[in-house]
Amino acid sequence: MAKDQKPRRPRAETPKGFRDYFGPEVTERKAMLDRIAAVYHLHGFEALETSGVETVEALGKFLPDVDRPNAGVFAWQEEAVPGGGSGDWLALRYDLTAPLARVAAQYRNDLPSPYRRYAMGPVWRNEKPGPGRYRQFYQCDADTVGAASVAADAEIIAMLADALETAGIARGDYLVRVNNRKVLNGVLEAARVQPEQAADVLRQIDKFDKVGEAGVRELLTTGRTDASGAEIEGVGLDASQAEPVLRFLTSKGDDNATTLQNLRAAVGGSAVGAEGVDELAQIAAMLDAMGMGADRVVIDPSVVRGLGYYTGPVFEAELTFEILDDKGRKRQFGSVAGGGRYDDLVERFTGQKVPATGVSIGVDRLLAALREKGLAGTEAQGPVVVTVMDRDRMADYQAMAAELRAAGIRAEVYLGNPKNFGNQLKYADKRAAPIAIIQGADEAARGVVQVKDLILGAKIAAQASVEEWKSQPAQVEVPRGAVIATVREMLAR
Amino acid sequence: MAKDQKPRRPRAETPKGFRDYFGPEVTERKAMLDRIAAVYHLHGFEALETSGVETVEALGKFLPDVDRPNAGVFAWQEEAVPGGGSGDWLALRYDLTAPLARVAAQYRNDLPSPYRRYAMGPVWRNEKPGPGRYRQFYQCDADTVGAASVAADAEIIAMLADALETAGIARGDYLVRVNNRKVLNGVLEAARVQPEQAADVLRQIDKFDKVGEAGVRELLTTGRTDASGAEIEGVGLDASQAEPVLRFLTSKGDDNATTLQNLRAAVGGSAVGAEGVDELAQIAAMLDAMGMGADRVVIDPSVVRGLGYYTGPVFEAELTFEILDDKGRKRQFGSVAGGGRYDDLVERFTGQKVPATGVSIGVDRLLAALREKGLAGTEAQGPVVVTVMDRDRMADYQAMAAELRAAGIRAEVYLGNPKNFGNQLKYADKRAAPIAIIQGADEAARGVVQVKDLILGAKIAAQASVEEWKSQPAQVEVPRGAVIATVREMLAR
Repeated sequence: MAKDQKPRRPRAETPKGFRDYFGPEVTERKAMLDRIAAVYHLHGFEALETSGVETVEALGKFLPDVDRPNAGVFAWQEEAVPGGGSGDWLALRYDLTAPLARVAAQYRNDLPSPYRRYAMGPVWRNEKPGPGRYRQFYQCDADTVGAASVAADAEIIAMLADALETAGIARGDYLVRVNNRKVLNGVLEAARVQPEQAADVLRQIDKFDKVGEAGVRELLTTGRTDASGAEIEGVGLDASQAEPVLRFLTSKGDDNATTLQNLRAAVGGSAVGAEGVDELAQIAAMLDAMGMGADRVVIDPSVVRGLGYYTGPVFEAELTFEILDDKGRKRQFGSVAGGGRYDDLVERFTGQKVPATGVSIGVDRLLAALREKGLAGTEAQGPVVVTVMDRDRMADYQAMAAELRAAGIRAEVYLGNPKNFGNQLKYADKRAAPIAIIQGADEAARGVVQVKDLILGAKIAAQASVEEWKSQPAQVEVPRGAVIATVREMLAR
Repeated sequence: MAKDQKPRRPRAETPKGFRDYFGPEVTERKAMLDRIAAVYHLHGFEALETSGVETVEALGKFLPDVDRPNAGVFAWQEEAVPGGGSGDWLALRYDLTAPLARVAAQYRNDLPSPYRRYAMGPVWRNEKPGPGRYRQFYQCDADTVGAASVAADAEIIAMLADALETAGIARGDYLVRVNNRKVLNGVLEAARVQPEQAADVLRQIDKFDKVGEAGVRELLTTGRTDASGAEIEGVGLDASQAEPVLRFLTSKGDDNATTLQNLRAAVGGSAVGAEGVDELAQIAAMLDAMGMGADRVVIDPSVVRGLGYYTGPVFEAELTFEILDDKGRKRQFGSVAGGGRYDDLVERFTGQKVPATGVSIGVDRLLAALREKGLAGTEAQGPVVVTVMDRDRMADYQAMAAELRAAGIRAEVYLGNPKNFGNQLKYADKRAAPIAIIQGADEAARGVVQVKDLILGAKIAAQASVEEWKSQPAQVEVPRGAVIATVREMLAR
């Protein structure tokens, strides 16, 4: 690759698909994750922080038959140096589950069993970035490894509901919907679906949300013409085979008892199906015992996302309030978290099947929901700015700021060139400062300070006449000793 | 590279030089960083979170004359795909200053100026790992960009002292020592040190801590024989040139005023030296105004670390209490933070010099100090464990755990195979559970619960006779409704 050999300045740019987070963007997300972590901790889950870098081998991201990692991960090969670099391929983790699998295998003799852990942090995807789609983003997971009982699933489902409420989503604004892959397996058995057809059936029922009952019936049988006029091939089931599948998808009743009854009918004589319905019945009873009413969690067989990946109970948390989409149309906010049971976590490493169940909260989605509800993005207020009228008296200004901070009030001294006072007020404005403190030589001699209410000042400037503005009602002169009290009073307005 | 073609299980291992952090290791560090962040925020600093990945170009880590990045960073080249991958070299950030430089240049028209920011997070070094030296570790920085005034340095120095105290280091257990590169420049001028000798002189005075005044005098002049008998060549100054340098290094007096007086003598007629002493005098006055006494911050010209890198004020925080080293010898804990002024931050990108000053706290060092002081590592206590006597009554046990959590008490239900009760108590022990809740069919029928104090139990087991042990004084039977109150009482013991 020929490169320009002239020395040139580097571009000051984030790499494509990466972004920076400033001030409140950082602290709001942190506050949300802190609240969720507290809920996880209260439930006996332990923090785990693995490093961002794993071997490609441990991530399971080697492509079959070639000695290169999957293109979806950021990977590089260490130099093989005798006594030094290993020649291993390393990669940035692409989720928090693969590192958990490695940890569960590596420390299997030391960790408590079952092992409840939560993890929060960035993951990296080497994918094409798009609007709102970044190549580094946060995940927030909680998993229980080594517990076969559906009590572990029920616990995580209840914990998810608690976490959403603690994060700020009001009861009634969310619903956790629970399904079970085993029930679907039972339905497939009852419908005499051949194993090689199962994946096709799953793909079609995944479209239930979009095309509805009639659409899925067509897709499962003879095929369907979509909105654009394109012919979509059907799976080729006959009508009697499609029926149990549709009965499964539409079996949600007015309460869990009715839903479970409908499901029992849908699975017919299938043993695995009956086991799946029993598990859902147990989960329903446990959720009930934990005080989780139907306003928070329901059994709902129309939850199909993740059914292909999970092996047992599967669940999804949806926010039920409406927002306006890009085109100004109302739509439900939708999914913010999901999870379920999976059993292949540790097997890759040890050969032993280890049951596991977990939840992942979509950090950016939930944060967007909190902003939508006015529960984040509100830390608009900056620090009190102590302006500098006499450069020689910087120590005095710093003493004022130190006093304010000692009183717990966020404060800073203007540190730019103090010559132009207008620039100082512009700076205070950019900092979203609520108050400016001003003391010139004259005020210092008289032992007083000007305290300027910038919020009130901005209001007056927008509305007042020139005379009103000149009278500066937003600025008060107070004795030097009264600064803290005056600032406190203004901040409380 | 020929590889074994037999399918084999992946190794469950962290890559060489990386490690995992479990439970309290994560939460203790987080608690410490939260406390420090609160101090930074109070001082008007804003959080900034950049991504872990930067272009090698922005990091300034291309090796000269070759199109390859420095071996010290983890780097990889993106595939060049038309309309897709850029072909850029990307790398993991190796510190938090290089990303700040990129941000300060990229957003120079939007950021407030001066821009105060703090950043906390992992950085990666592609270096040979050693004991306690990892290839991913945390940094915790605060910097002010765009402020030429030493008021910015004084503010950061005072903020560092506040941050250490807020983190838990008591006054008297730390000292921030302040020096100034300009004073050294003045001393070199006064000593008629040639520009080409300056780096050699710096290298020798860096050994002041180890070899003392006499040793540095030898190193600056004719050379020295070290402890192993090896001859070390001297810089070749004559005695009259070496004298101002030594006077500089030993000019610390009983108070700042005396030290400043000694420094004025050491810099002789050098203008830059006088400027440096003036700056230190201003900083001393400002620290005084902010209430930072000599028990917290002192002017100390023997601080030489970083003098080669920084361009103005430079400072270091040391912990002054003693610890035992690996060989059981007492030694001072030593440095936990440092910083100073540097002016080349943004220049690489824009061509404009932008003054900047900052501090970096050694996260692992400070955490080790807090552990040494018994101020971290104390979250030994696990959750209350509700044991499972009857698998059928899992919902009852979950209801008990939910009740405990609703009362703010960390609690979990045993989720393993409940058949062997001994395993449940072993699990509770591994979880460091303070209390176990036990309710069999008999207790359930009588409406009571056994509450077992595991901490007291362990004490008794270690000391008591068989009879005492059998009487189980650490276990009480209480009515079902009294569980919360009993647990609260036991936890308060």
